[in-house]
Amino acid sequence: MSTIRVTTTSATYDVAIAPGLLRTLHTRLRKLTPGKTPRLFVVTSPEIWALWSKPFLASFPAKQKPTAIFLPAGESRKRLAQVEALAQQLALAGADRDSILLAFGGGIIGDVTGFLAAIYMRGIRYVGLPTTVLAQVDSSLGGKTGVNLVAGKNLIGCFHHPLAVFSDIDTLRTLPAAELRAGLQEAIKSGIIRDPALFRTMEKNAEAILSGDPAALQKVVTACVKVKAEVVSKDEKESGLRMILNFGHTIGHAIEAATHYRKLLHGEAVGWGSIAALHLSLNRGLISPEDFARMANLILRYGPIPTFKVAAKPQASAAKLVALTYADKKNRSGQRAFVLATGIGTAEVAHDVTDVELLTATQSMLQTMQQA
Amino acid sequence: MSTIRVTTTSATYDVAIAPGLLRTLHTRLRKLTPGKTPRLFVVTSPEIWALWSKPFLASFPAKQKPTAIFLPAGESRKRLAQVEALAQQLALAGADRDSILLAFGGGIIGDVTGFLAAIYMRGIRYVGLPTTVLAQVDSSLGGKTGVNLVAGKNLIGCFHHPLAVFSDIDTLRTLPAAELRAGLQEAIKSGIIRDPALFRTMEKNAEAILSGDPAALQKVVTACVKVKAEVVSKDEKESGLRMILNFGHTIGHAIEAATHYRKLLHGEAVGWGSIAALHLSLNRGLISPEDFARMANLILRYGPIPTFKVAAKPQASAAKLVALTYADKKNRSGQRAFVLATGIGTAEVAHDVTDVELLTATQSMLQTMQQA
Repeated sequence: MSTIRVTTTSATYDVAIAPGLLRTLHTRLRKLTPGKTPRLFVVTSPEIWALWSKPFLASFPAKQKPTAIFLPAGESRKRLAQVEALAQQLALAGADRDSILLAFGGGIIGDVTGFLAAIYMRGIRYVGLPTTVLAQVDSSLGGKTGVNLVAGKNLIGCFHHPLAVFSDIDTLRTLPAAELRAGLQEAIKSGIIRDPALFRTMEKNAEAILSGDPAALQKVVTACVKVKAEVVSKDEKESGLRMILNFGHTIGHAIEAATHYRKLLHGEAVGWGSIAALHLSLNRGLISPEDFARMANLILRYGPIPTFKVAAKPQASAAKLVALTYADKKNRSGQRAFVLATGIGTAEVAHDVTDVELLTATQSMLQTMQQA
Repeated sequence: MSTIRVTTTSATYDVAIAPGLLRTLHTRLRKLTPGKTPRLFVVTSPEIWALWSKPFLASFPAKQKPTAIFLPAGESRKRLAQVEALAQQLALAGADRDSILLAFGGGIIGDVTGFLAAIYMRGIRYVGLPTTVLAQVDSSLGGKTGVNLVAGKNLIGCFHHPLAVFSDIDTLRTLPAAELRAGLQEAIKSGIIRDPALFRTMEKNAEAILSGDPAALQKVVTACVKVKAEVVSKDEKESGLRMILNFGHTIGHAIEAATHYRKLLHGEAVGWGSIAALHLSLNRGLISPEDFARMANLILRYGPIPTFKVAAKPQASAAKLVALTYADKKNRSGQRAFVLATGIGTAEVAHDVTDVELLTATQSMLQTMQQA
């Protein structure tokens, strides 16, 4: 089992990564909350519960089984109305300030449950039990929780750290192939911005990783958690360093908004967004053509990433995506922050990226898409 | 001008209390945010804006006038759906992480705007500009923000402190008489739990205070802010001492829930709840019959408090109210906390109040109501 500690100014917690964690969940939770037994509520999707409720519940004594409440799957459910419905169920079931929520599912379950925990009775505790690569390598860590507005993704939310995260590698076995690949795009991102060894591992062991080999996946997940833990520990509230985690996300978010969060998985949009960011980095001379090719190729190797269309012509598509970046909440007082690669394993934040540069890079990305 | 500093582990800010503060608002805000001028958004009600927009806007240069967004008045608007609508308007108007919200109105405007600030882009800054006694003496301080669920009042929320609070005493001039009286019930509560001098002031100067005399009101508001600032500074997250601020609120909340938040103003429900709490304190021998009479009489003196009916017979009404106290979010792991007076100016929290005791006290309160 790998255990990684996340330390921020507002919270310290451990992330455990291994197969078989669910089967010993009760003991693990008891260790986290010595003394009085708090009431547990598991927030999950009907799909995950159908597949995994048995091992999930196995370790709990008959009278201490968590109460399950359900969030239907899909980005369209990541809204305040769903949070309200869940909160109402918690209240009716008698959840109080000492109760603990268990976020059992993918990124959306984690984001919504973390936010629900942040605002229910002005904040209760929660534990992350991520079941997708995306959630295990990225979204379950760092305390970012929230939901979407019609005006944009994740515009509503809180910083609220989990009490602990248990990433059971076994749960990745039932993950749809497209979701496995999409999640691995975030792992590639971690390699690009901060971990050349992870990048090489993903180049060398692509076959094992893509086939879902548990040992290979545990290695990748662990490396990603280390990257994120380190970055988040240094910069909890995204004033500087933490922004590099958004590599590929400026255009990625624009793609998701332009396609109404329906056509691509988050990791897939980040894949295309990363290629746009690589083009921009190349055009600025920050990376060599060789490194550009290695990074872009690895992203495509973990595809196929679905293509998309936001306007009839590429030029109009690019313009639309660039226009959408102005809604990005990373912007401060009208200024757009953009993450650039400066090599394999290093990145930096630029505040002076012009619309023309971004337009050119986005057009190049759309060309890459047509050729892929 | 009275200025009182609130110091908690997570924030420090000043509360300024005086007439005429609105007319110099721009300068006051500039002092809070030296450097770059942030965008300002004022969240208010159409009623307040109709009455006070002129003095509010007077101090701002033409190009820096805050953008107004509106929350219709009423407890029924204190819901997540309204928060979402406001957030959507902020996003469309281009509010970013550096923007500042101005909460200009009563308790509901303050609670909703503070919560909106807490969750918009995972937290932006806000300034309190309370225009009611209730908001000036209580709800604008302490960082409690939030909205209601169908299942209960304030079940959704965050701790999020304002950057500053400016309580312009002038705005109380346009407050409906019933709201003035209801707000003063919270002031009486402050006297009962912690400030015998404030209690005496409210006894002696009842006429001036109830007629809206600015100097008398400034004195009362200042004393209440001092009480709350002191309590909140010692116990930000309500683990102990802060609970005494909930004197009268256990039954008060139950009354509000039983009457669907429509029949009584919050302060009015707290008035009746305080009388129930006084009966319980008397029955336990914690206060003398003389002190009981002085406190109950002062509450009634600041009336008339509307009467209400939640069931055909008093016994059934009392039972219903006691049953509703189990939904109180102050309860932890099923245990009900209850604040008792131990004299004029002192209070304590009890965790062992039985249903029978509470039932008896609630029945006595209902009798007081019939006689009043």
